[in-house]
Amino acid sequence: MIRCIGFDADDTLWHNENIFEAAHARYRQLLARHHPAAEVDRVLYATEMRNLPLYGYGVKGFMLSTVETAIELTQGTISAAEIRAILALGREMLAHPVELLPGVAEVVPVLARDYRLLLITKGDLHHQERKIAASGLAAHFSAIEILSEKDGTAYDRILRRHGVALEEFVMVGNSLKSDILPVLELGGAGVHIPYHLTWQHEHAEPPHAHPRFRRVERLADLPPLVPAL
Amino acid sequence: MIRCIGFDADDTLWHNENIFEAAHARYRQLLARHHPAAEVDRVLYATEMRNLPLYGYGVKGFMLSTVETAIELTQGTISAAEIRAILALGREMLAHPVELLPGVAEVVPVLARDYRLLLITKGDLHHQERKIAASGLAAHFSAIEILSEKDGTAYDRILRRHGVALEEFVMVGNSLKSDILPVLELGGAGVHIPYHLTWQHEHAEPPHAHPRFRRVERLADLPPLVPAL
Repeated sequence: MIRCIGFDADDTLWHNENIFEAAHARYRQLLARHHPAAEVDRVLYATEMRNLPLYGYGVKGFMLSTVETAIELTQGTISAAEIRAILALGREMLAHPVELLPGVAEVVPVLARDYRLLLITKGDLHHQERKIAASGLAAHFSAIEILSEKDGTAYDRILRRHGVALEEFVMVGNSLKSDILPVLELGGAGVHIPYHLTWQHEHAEPPHAHPRFRRVERLADLPPLVPAL
Repeated sequence: MIRCIGFDADDTLWHNENIFEAAHARYRQLLARHHPAAEVDRVLYATEMRNLPLYGYGVKGFMLSTVETAIELTQGTISAAEIRAILALGREMLAHPVELLPGVAEVVPVLARDYRLLLITKGDLHHQERKIAASGLAAHFSAIEILSEKDGTAYDRILRRHGVALEEFVMVGNSLKSDILPVLELGGAGVHIPYHLTWQHEHAEPPHAHPRFRRVERLADLPPLVPAL
């Protein structure tokens, strides 16, 4: 019987990937006279992946990778004014208001009455804290955990810290790779709520055959599902 | 009677500010043909302070501020190659090996036998975790807390979470502002171990008159002091 629900934050409780997608679109435009969009995307993603061990997740690392990629793609001919425009793109991402996904403002308080809720997110500590504060949702969660990576080791540590048994735990999120697969592997349950955009790095195949895996289209479909997990 | 010791990490357990100082020196050289060193320092610090609410602490935010400042100070005439060199400075900071301060490798394991040790640091989650792993010290700490800000609210939350009473707690660190003053204010004890460099942002006056404040010159002087706090 489920007693504790873990929620991912970005693209599960509020919009996030659409902000990255809009920044990507403007970044492609800035570099359009040098390279076609597909090439810009390819080199930027390669730069991000190369930098991930050093920078970790989050907008600041993304900003540094966009500057580096722009210098590389223009063979050093990009102007300081253009780099300033690229930095401004990232600053807008960091300053973007938090927009809750449909149903979140209604469903989270209802679930908080019957279950212990944990917010389990990854990325930049400072930015995630600012988004959580801006969301107005913090009071519904019994704990907030901001991790540098969401893998089995991290979930195991978090659940031990909070005294949550795996058979009583379900993780809810949009990323199969970060929210669902590691929890299923440990023995917990997972409910996937897809977001309409997925960062290439988070792609994974849905584990349809797993008995404790479910997929719903919207958060409003979650509450009736939980007692049956 | 002290039962739990909180340790700051950067410039308390391992060198950090000297890495920033070396990067500053090379940054001043890169901009020397445009501005005198003092002006470079002044504008960079102003940029960092302006960006702090958006970027938080850590090397990635510093990197973004160095790029922004260089564009501003050169009125947009800086070349992409120079910006690449500035980014490389920051990457070297992130990749810098962790160098323990004198006595740390000997004193921390000894204290861990008699006291519960907490590592309480602020800054970039990903970078701090990498440094903690590289330090080889993690096993001596009963918990590791990486915070976006070290103020009274944050210490209060951490100590509650770990069930530590303030009269049983001493915080040890190099920053009066972040490690000592908020803990004294809550009712805990504080031991200041100065580092030979202090970031301007962390400057504060030592609370010499406070009965639970001590200052020692090196970590080796800490163990005999703790029972008397």
